Amino acid sequence: MADKKLVEEITSMEEDFAQWYTDVVKKAELMDYSSIKGCMIFKPGGYAIWENIQRLLDARFKETGVENVYLPLFIPEGLLQKEKDHVEGFAPEVAWVTHGGNEKLVERLAVRPTSETLFCDLYASIVHSYRDLPKVYNQWCSVVRWEKSTRPFLRSSEFLWQEGHTAHATAEEAEERTIQMLNVYADFCEEELAIPMVKGRKTDKEKFAGAEATYTIEALMHDGKALQSGTSHNFGDGFARAYDIQYTDQNNQLQYVHQTSWGASTRLIGAIIMVHGDDSGLVLPPHIAPTQMMVVPIQQRKEGVLDAAEGLRKALAAAGIRTKLDDTDKSPGWKFAEAEMRGIPLRAEIGPKDMAAGQCVLVRRDTREKTVVALDEAPQKAAELLETIQHDMLERARDFLDTHISDARNYDEFKDAVENKPGFIRAMWCGDVACEEKIKEDTTATSRCMPFEQEKIADTCVCCGREAKKLVFWGKAY
Amino acid sequence: MADKKLVEEITSMEEDFAQWYTDVVKKAELMDYSSIKGCMIFKPGGYAIWENIQRLLDARFKETGVENVYLPLFIPEGLLQKEKDHVEGFAPEVAWVTHGGNEKLVERLAVRPTSETLFCDLYASIVHSYRDLPKVYNQWCSVVRWEKSTRPFLRSSEFLWQEGHTAHATAEEAEERTIQMLNVYADFCEEELAIPMVKGRKTDKEKFAGAEATYTIEALMHDGKALQSGTSHNFGDGFARAYDIQYTDQNNQLQYVHQTSWGASTRLIGAIIMVHGDDSGLVLPPHIAPTQMMVVPIQQRKEGVLDAAEGLRKALAAAGIRTKLDDTDKSPGWKFAEAEMRGIPLRAEIGPKDMAAGQCVLVRRDTREKTVVALDEAPQKAAELLETIQHDMLERARDFLDTHISDARNYDEFKDAVENKPGFIRAMWCGDVACEEKIKEDTTATSRCMPFEQEKIADTCVCCGREAKKLVFWGKAY
Repeated sequence: MADKKLVEEITSMEEDFAQWYTDVVKKAELMDYSSIKGCMIFKPGGYAIWENIQRLLDARFKETGVENVYLPLFIPEGLLQKEKDHVEGFAPEVAWVTHGGNEKLVERLAVRPTSETLFCDLYASIVHSYRDLPKVYNQWCSVVRWEKSTRPFLRSSEFLWQEGHTAHATAEEAEERTIQMLNVYADFCEEELAIPMVKGRKTDKEKFAGAEATYTIEALMHDGKALQSGTSHNFGDGFARAYDIQYTDQNNQLQYVHQTSWGASTRLIGAIIMVHGDDSGLVLPPHIAPTQMMVVPIQQRKEGVLDAAEGLRKALAAAGIRTKLDDTDKSPGWKFAEAEMRGIPLRAEIGPKDMAAGQCVLVRRDTREKTVVALDEAPQKAAELLETIQHDMLERARDFLDTHISDARNYDEFKDAVENKPGFIRAMWCGDVACEEKIKEDTTATSRCMPFEQEKIADTCVCCGREAKKLVFWGKAY
Repeated sequence: MADKKLVEEITSMEEDFAQWYTDVVKKAELMDYSSIKGCMIFKPGGYAIWENIQRLLDARFKETGVENVYLPLFIPEGLLQKEKDHVEGFAPEVAWVTHGGNEKLVERLAVRPTSETLFCDLYASIVHSYRDLPKVYNQWCSVVRWEKSTRPFLRSSEFLWQEGHTAHATAEEAEERTIQMLNVYADFCEEELAIPMVKGRKTDKEKFAGAEATYTIEALMHDGKALQSGTSHNFGDGFARAYDIQYTDQNNQLQYVHQTSWGASTRLIGAIIMVHGDDSGLVLPPHIAPTQMMVVPIQQRKEGVLDAAEGLRKALAAAGIRTKLDDTDKSPGWKFAEAEMRGIPLRAEIGPKDMAAGQCVLVRRDTREKTVVALDEAPQKAAELLETIQHDMLERARDFLDTHISDARNYDEFKDAVENKPGFIRAMWCGDVACEEKIKEDTTATSRCMPFEQEKIADTCVCCGREAKKLVFWGKAY
């Protein structure tokens, strides 16, 4: 179809995946660079996706009893330093406020890179008795981590996210919440973003600074690289000891609380782009698409066409479908290409011939398949088609994931897989960080996670040949 | 009712309004002080109100064509300095980032006190032709203005707000948008927050740094002080000239855009507290109340009572009413007092006697009026009552406003009114800033606005006796 080329061309995926990604982000008007090094601008198209992510994910949080709060943007340097591992992990990338107005501050303030320390400070002041537990708080905010290089949605000095922070009476309850939230993320990604996830635990090398255990969901991008898409941490009582968060239990004994934190960010938009996009641009899952349908009139100057198109838009909107009408003076082919670039899941075409036949044409973004439907059935058929698209997108992504996991039983197989088989590599590991480091140095692949479903595909570590302890998913990653 | 005193007492309004306010904020668990000077913590009760404000106000924005975006938290010092009046207005209260990680920055970054400069920078890069106009962008975010003193919701170094920033082809269109958004705020406050507003234009002394004209909505608190609750600014082409935002018009001529900005913040929560609250605590308008009804079981240990109460909660929730059940082991009186403290608009009581009679008791928070209703009619009656409460709260607030506006025709009357008649004072003004300054120095009252409906209640300026030019609303203000 020549239509595809009407909109300024984007680099093809096969040719240069990184450039394709940048082109899509720019041409679909999702994000733009700002004049502040490392900081991005969320344009309306990009921010609207984030709003839908927030709305749907927040509803899932609240179903599990999460309450939203908002804590300060700043963390006093002394507060940040109380937990040793944590401050070591974050200090190198903190932005520091040193002056307020014209006065030099007595103590420097970190612009929050994450808010564990502030939540600990709060919990220390409001948790006294077992009756005050659990606390299951979350906040939606921006955080700052000073980055040298920038990649839209994937890496920037400031990004948007949510961070949940909880306090529990027992270690068991904290572990349960950690896994519960990991599953909330995984289910959300599958059911709303149509992205299947590999779930598991991070190795000690890859875990969060200050955590006892970090769990992760990892998605596979179209270029075969992994994207960490959400993490959930069990802190045990480490932070509670550092920040002195104690409560009186039912036996009147002082106990430390057990804590968790979990976060997902605007990286998820990067995942949507790289899992579903194609050479015509973005392909958005219907559940998350700000505009689910675009109505395009054909021969719109002919009498009655624009009215019929607006009537169709209204009928679709009335059925709860987020629908827009493109009544600009561009050509239909141009409009098709623009709607495709923006990833709008379904397009409706209506012209004089369709009107005479009392019908319209529905065109899927994902497959470009056309369906002719009677006008009075259009809203119902469109709603069904949107669900079909959502379902099919997940199935295609799952097929891609399943066919891009390879097993390596020795180091030659491993190196061959990294070179020639894009995707995850399953391989056994002895548990020694030295092997992780060697693998990374030799191949750039990193351990993504130790999957919950462990099996033994070999007896020895893929790297050193010593006894194998864990099955690990490895891969190149963003 | 002895119940009222079961919850820790709060200071009475009449005795000490400022302390009453602080007590309510704390006891209703809306907000808390943090360990960072000037920064507050939004607790779940306070943040949930903000979420409802966001949801309802954002929907009204979008109906007028507003698109949401997100711009960086930081503003390079050089960019902030391009518009002279603007930087002079904000520089004294800016927090400065000087270090990123371990490196000193080449240029200091301001933590945004407001984002005019960033939006100008963006518009300069994306507006080229008349076809690119108008741009009607908004962002929800936090801003930082270094404050010496803190008052929950009213004044803090960091606060949450939305800031809309628009660019238009003509001066007329910019003025139209400025007034349109002021009306969106005023209607929202009346219809959702049950707060009537005085609308008008700010004097030059009180207008926004860099604006041609600032419009405001001003609410009257229960202590007779005014609270500026939302502002809308017309910038003309001043910022466009400073930041070089030009477009090519239909005649192929370069033109500067005309801009507006408009904002409302978490101050609105302060207004809700101080307009509707009473000596038992918060009173929330039903439209904005996170929990609209609390079901309180009576003699809950008796068989079937908790089941009946939960059944009632479910029936109310199914009717779309945000309802909770208080099944803790506290006494009913204590539960009543807690629900009152939190401002929950309607309470339902159900005990063995009610169950036998197939009924429950509904108790209004605002009037404490009791209504006995049949259980199967409870959801419908409760929904009606909530609307009645919303309506009555607005009427009471309107009565209060109307009866707290006094006219002053000379300076003695003015000073008497400031001393003895809490509320707004209407008085004529010559237009000279010297009179505004003298009035403020003599009485602490400031000009709140020049109302849209001007009349001439005297021929001479209330302060200097020269010819009167404008009718002005004056008042002590937060």
